[in-house]
Amino acid sequence: MIKTMQDLVRRAQLLTPKKMVVAVANDHHVLEAVDQAKKAGIIEPILVGDKDKIIETINELKLVISDYDIIDVKDPIDACNQSVKLVSLGKADILMKGFVDTAIILRAVLDKEFGLRTPNRISHVSLMEIPSYHKLLLMSDGAMNMYPTVDEKQEIIENGISILHAMGIKTPKVGVIAAIEKVNPKMPATVDAENLIERNQSGRLKGCVIGGPFALDNAINKEAAIHKGVTDPMAGDVDFLLMPQIESGNVFYKSMMFLAHAKSASLIAGARRPIVLTSRADSKDSKFYSIALACIVSDPS
Amino acid sequence: MIKTMQDLVRRAQLLTPKKMVVAVANDHHVLEAVDQAKKAGIIEPILVGDKDKIIETINELKLVISDYDIIDVKDPIDACNQSVKLVSLGKADILMKGFVDTAIILRAVLDKEFGLRTPNRISHVSLMEIPSYHKLLLMSDGAMNMYPTVDEKQEIIENGISILHAMGIKTPKVGVIAAIEKVNPKMPATVDAENLIERNQSGRLKGCVIGGPFALDNAINKEAAIHKGVTDPMAGDVDFLLMPQIESGNVFYKSMMFLAHAKSASLIAGARRPIVLTSRADSKDSKFYSIALACIVSDPS
Repeated sequence: MIKTMQDLVRRAQLLTPKKMVVAVANDHHVLEAVDQAKKAGIIEPILVGDKDKIIETINELKLVISDYDIIDVKDPIDACNQSVKLVSLGKADILMKGFVDTAIILRAVLDKEFGLRTPNRISHVSLMEIPSYHKLLLMSDGAMNMYPTVDEKQEIIENGISILHAMGIKTPKVGVIAAIEKVNPKMPATVDAENLIERNQSGRLKGCVIGGPFALDNAINKEAAIHKGVTDPMAGDVDFLLMPQIESGNVFYKSMMFLAHAKSASLIAGARRPIVLTSRADSKDSKFYSIALACIVSDPS
Repeated sequence: MIKTMQDLVRRAQLLTPKKMVVAVANDHHVLEAVDQAKKAGIIEPILVGDKDKIIETINELKLVISDYDIIDVKDPIDACNQSVKLVSLGKADILMKGFVDTAIILRAVLDKEFGLRTPNRISHVSLMEIPSYHKLLLMSDGAMNMYPTVDEKQEIIENGISILHAMGIKTPKVGVIAAIEKVNPKMPATVDAENLIERNQSGRLKGCVIGGPFALDNAINKEAAIHKGVTDPMAGDVDFLLMPQIESGNVFYKSMMFLAHAKSASLIAGARRPIVLTSRADSKDSKFYSIALACIVSDPS
């Protein structure tokens, strides 16, 4: 059972090291985390980008150049395309974004010829260790899908539960978050909750159990749920918070990271392989944990 | 300077005790908090409702009946109307909801003849003491206004800053929260932020300084703001988070209360007098702090 970020790293260490390609790899913060992951024995990195710049960054960080397989591609767009192709062709297991705009790497990921598309849309997923919660908590989507329709929410759920499945949680408990516990036609999040539960119960949305609408407290605190008369057995014990829209997701993620001492691992899910796409503001630890999560998700076993 | 909930109570104790009318007062949890506030010397309660039921509740709680001024009104709607009239006529300073539906008491509050309306809409405001933030933080609206327009957001801001003014904060820093820091026409919260800042700078929205759009981290954490290149001097130091819609506000409030060990005081603002309208799920402490905040807000000095 993976209950902490440390457990996540330990699990990744039990697996065969994964080949991870870093697109436009001359990024200090990214390479620091990559080096940590390499030293932990969980990845074998392939660095794609301007070789001179990459070597300069490696030297500045005082890392060992011979540790790294470097593929020289000067142009950042080409570097992204090459990186995605390596993953697409099975020559690498994980893609990580380096010093390049998110839009550029995602264009390569979503390319119809050589990209990593699946029928699902891609979504951003954060797995969090929150000291005041009794297990890891996955949350989506606070960074990528702005105002998802109910069909898009289904895809966001499917992407998220694929990660929880890889972590060994067979039937994740998905709580659909709103501001209240009752369906109210004026509040789309509550109507979508009802719809998603119906899809789950009729077998159109499988591999999890869905509950809601929940106000946040009822999803993560049993006492609060009882107090409110919420009888769903998953109340207070969810594995996955589906957020109504990007603002709630973003506010929750930032609340936990900056005000509740949380640790996190984030991925782009919904592509054929996990994508580590951390932001500059993420700590080195968050980047390292994200790589560990990607290793677990990309493991075939 | 009021920096904690304890400071809030101490400040209320320095003022003349306020007359507080409790509508439909036969509510255990409400009366417990009312008793605590009476013992702290900050209020003189007037209990309106079914006298037999109120006395029964007082006896069950082992409180002293002679401490309480009770006005016997059997019907809950009548009790709400009578309670509101007492405040309206200046015979009480604060209104508190007891064992009655929110909709019923608000109908009385908003009555055009005897109610407590102002030109502004009413809004829900939570003041929070969050251990990981360096001062009290006000947030609105996580409970009442669902999807406010920019004009409605102006009123929510005006209602909130009136509370901060009463607390002695002359020019509160209001951070308009979104998922990102840049204005994006696809994200209404960012467009509204720009609009509200313009209103503030042109003097149409006074008594505060407004910044944003902020992702939450930049509003409440200086380092995160610097990291992101956010140069607004209020970044990391806001007094007031204006939330984009009810879901984000609700998620933030619940996050802080259930996962970040926060304390809170909540009010309905925007009426002629403060209204304490706590929910069953709020702790006794939250109810007590809410009364203390109402005492400060209703003080004429």
